[in-house]
Amino acid sequence: MTLSKLPFTVDALHAAYKAGLQPEAVVAEAFRRLDAVGDAGIFIHHAREQALAEAQSLGAPDGRPLWGIPFAVKDNIDVAGMPTTAACPDFAYQPGADAFVVARLRAAGAICLGKTNLDQFATGLVGVRTPYPVPKNAIDPAIVPGGSSSGSAVAVAHGVVGFALGTDTAGSGRVPAALNAIVGLKPTLGALSASGVVPACRTLDTISIFATTVAEAWTVFEAAAAPDEADAYSRPVAVPALTAPPPSLRIGVPNAASLVTFGDALQAEDFRATTARLADQGATLVEIDLEPFFAVARMLYEGAWLAERVAAVGDRLTEKPETLHPTTRAILEPGLDLTAVDAFRGLYRLREREAVCRKLLAGIDALCVPTIPTFVALDEIAADPIGPNSRLGTYTNFANLLDLCGIAVPTGPRADGRPGSVTLLATQGRDALCAGIAAGLEAGPMGATAWPRPANALPDAVLPAPHEIAIAVCG
Amino acid sequence: MTLSKLPFTVDALHAAYKAGLQPEAVVAEAFRRLDAVGDAGIFIHHAREQALAEAQSLGAPDGRPLWGIPFAVKDNIDVAGMPTTAACPDFAYQPGADAFVVARLRAAGAICLGKTNLDQFATGLVGVRTPYPVPKNAIDPAIVPGGSSSGSAVAVAHGVVGFALGTDTAGSGRVPAALNAIVGLKPTLGALSASGVVPACRTLDTISIFATTVAEAWTVFEAAAAPDEADAYSRPVAVPALTAPPPSLRIGVPNAASLVTFGDALQAEDFRATTARLADQGATLVEIDLEPFFAVARMLYEGAWLAERVAAVGDRLTEKPETLHPTTRAILEPGLDLTAVDAFRGLYRLREREAVCRKLLAGIDALCVPTIPTFVALDEIAADPIGPNSRLGTYTNFANLLDLCGIAVPTGPRADGRPGSVTLLATQGRDALCAGIAAGLEAGPMGATAWPRPANALPDAVLPAPHEIAIAVCG
Repeated sequence: MTLSKLPFTVDALHAAYKAGLQPEAVVAEAFRRLDAVGDAGIFIHHAREQALAEAQSLGAPDGRPLWGIPFAVKDNIDVAGMPTTAACPDFAYQPGADAFVVARLRAAGAICLGKTNLDQFATGLVGVRTPYPVPKNAIDPAIVPGGSSSGSAVAVAHGVVGFALGTDTAGSGRVPAALNAIVGLKPTLGALSASGVVPACRTLDTISIFATTVAEAWTVFEAAAAPDEADAYSRPVAVPALTAPPPSLRIGVPNAASLVTFGDALQAEDFRATTARLADQGATLVEIDLEPFFAVARMLYEGAWLAERVAAVGDRLTEKPETLHPTTRAILEPGLDLTAVDAFRGLYRLREREAVCRKLLAGIDALCVPTIPTFVALDEIAADPIGPNSRLGTYTNFANLLDLCGIAVPTGPRADGRPGSVTLLATQGRDALCAGIAAGLEAGPMGATAWPRPANALPDAVLPAPHEIAIAVCG
Repeated sequence: MTLSKLPFTVDALHAAYKAGLQPEAVVAEAFRRLDAVGDAGIFIHHAREQALAEAQSLGAPDGRPLWGIPFAVKDNIDVAGMPTTAACPDFAYQPGADAFVVARLRAAGAICLGKTNLDQFATGLVGVRTPYPVPKNAIDPAIVPGGSSSGSAVAVAHGVVGFALGTDTAGSGRVPAALNAIVGLKPTLGALSASGVVPACRTLDTISIFATTVAEAWTVFEAAAAPDEADAYSRPVAVPALTAPPPSLRIGVPNAASLVTFGDALQAEDFRATTARLADQGATLVEIDLEPFFAVARMLYEGAWLAERVAAVGDRLTEKPETLHPTTRAILEPGLDLTAVDAFRGLYRLREREAVCRKLLAGIDALCVPTIPTFVALDEIAADPIGPNSRLGTYTNFANLLDLCGIAVPTGPRADGRPGSVTLLATQGRDALCAGIAAGLEAGPMGATAWPRPANALPDAVLPAPHEIAIAVCG
């Protein structure tokens, strides 16, 4: 296989390395691909020289799980030697060290190629709220790339990197995956340390992982996940080897009334076709009214949590508002008027709504939803910077408020060629179950690449029976 | 035994009932005792007629665990047929139903004699912040009765009732127990439903139980605890039968630097004597620097949680401030200026401090602290309504912020005759462990009564080994 066609997956790269390929050549090829794509919006900071030096210093393959795998990092996550901007040039600083997760990935042998574009301060699901050039959607340039982790998703979708880090508060690790036909793994909150990450909503943020397949994303997750004493929100989360899910699962799906697609009939059709595959695989589909979940979703930007974003941006909103993207500023400003009483009342309401959702979740093993209700065209978001963005969060905004884990997975092109995607969601700690189900659904092109999709060959597992939970007791 | 000397404990009453005593006679005797005490500050609402009617309707003893046991309810907890005031006359309303816990206790056969005085809106640890007459301390009229559950504690200490309900946010269920030589059980948050309770800090409130012995308090807890779907903060908490604790426990105690007594040398001496008894019983004492716990304690009134109290009081603070006790008003008003950003920053700081405390707790089975650092005289609190109150919360304020369960237990009079008391605290769900340890320490008079203290005869248990946790998985 010529280097230009080599999939940057772990298996393909490790096979090529074994056959004599040098990591410097892979780094050079990655930047050749980036140049060929010709999208100046993907990266905010290219680290070509640093990456080449790192590649050279790797020596011979040594069995580390991510040895020689090129990756990209969303620019709200610190990488030593590269500025962190959060897509706000005035905010830029030079971090003294790698973020905890970046350090683990580099320790596992991965090579960071640079920092990727995002909706400023990770506030947005569209990817256009940036003072830098907007990354182009890798599949269809008429639609938004998705955000906030826009550059990371597009970089993976073009095969420039093997994987990329995003973050996910409202859906920033899932929506861009859906829009670019790749996998977006949003782990249980606390599984991936937030040390060295610019917060959006500190109680709801997590690093997320983009990759071309579920198995790739899981390999990265295994390397990245570890408790971090420096992050008070870090939690021990089980990351077992990925296996096929048990055959007789109960999977919740939206009932007809709550399968919201804003008139996109193809999206509903495509989603029903995908859930039919789940049923074919032996799952019992349980129709659920998602309205209680949507009620939680609406709290994220209409309620107290806006104040978390204000807290994260600090004095900038009042002292230097002109340094903010106009849309970001417009979204954050109402947060200045919220009182502590509002905040606690929001927490009470969330707890009440959460209790309703937990009852619905108690009857199922996982929830399967469309990752996005429909697509958003660039001209739509130009005409209305907020409405279409909110719509994109229909099936994502509630997940972190309810402490769910999730994974967005491409399910193959819809009848019109646009990428299909569903998200598997489950209560905290069931990341492996979601990933296992997702692996059974992934289909179609891997982003915009021509890479051949590897056969899904997950081993069967001795798993807890459905409705049981594996519990790890720590401390 | 003459009725006037009959202990109102479950065992003594049930034996007397078996011998022919009528519950109406017990209700009459309870009110005779109250009249004899001559303290108009204990009850805000007497329910003599309602209680007599209830006693008459009980019929013959039927084996219910609290059949015919008279009890009192803090006046921030609803009892049908009695007004709820929260010690704010203008706030008074007639509840349509019993609070969830009251309903359970009445269903178990207990007879409610009335509603007891409190620091207004449960804000205080002294018991003097009330527009009603201040209840007198049952042991020493020169010192404060303790609050906020002042009337409930004093009623139990005088033997007017067998037990009483309080609430505990900052220590309101423990401090008055210490000041009146009785037991104060403050369960794991969520074990006792908050339905029908006027909130103080909704995320931190729990109903608490006053009784003369640990075993009595536990019997009440067994009857009262149940999940409540109507309370989003309700959690399933294990309430096993009370047993002796395992013999080789690791008990954390404050190190010399953090054994704060504000110069009360007797209190330190008394506490060391009590912990020496723990060591004699086989426990390993582990000296701990409590400063991280004190840092959490300070957050309760200095930080964001003040806004929860403001939320609970609602518009009263701005619309009708003259209806509030002047001290309560002075405490709450700064909460109006707190922003939602302040609230979330408070939550972040708590999480960070909690992580430090959790590490300290991981090495021990339970923590033993003085319930109060020292006593507060009525003239002291008259001269400074806030400072001495804050000092009383030294060892209590942090418990609910850290999701600890606890029980205050009388340990017998100090050398000067004032009541000794320690509190056992542990991580959530270890209520039975704390109670078991506490039962091994209880000593001295039961409040101000002349009742003979029953022998502590807890059965040995097949308990998890120390450092293990019994886990209940629900849902």
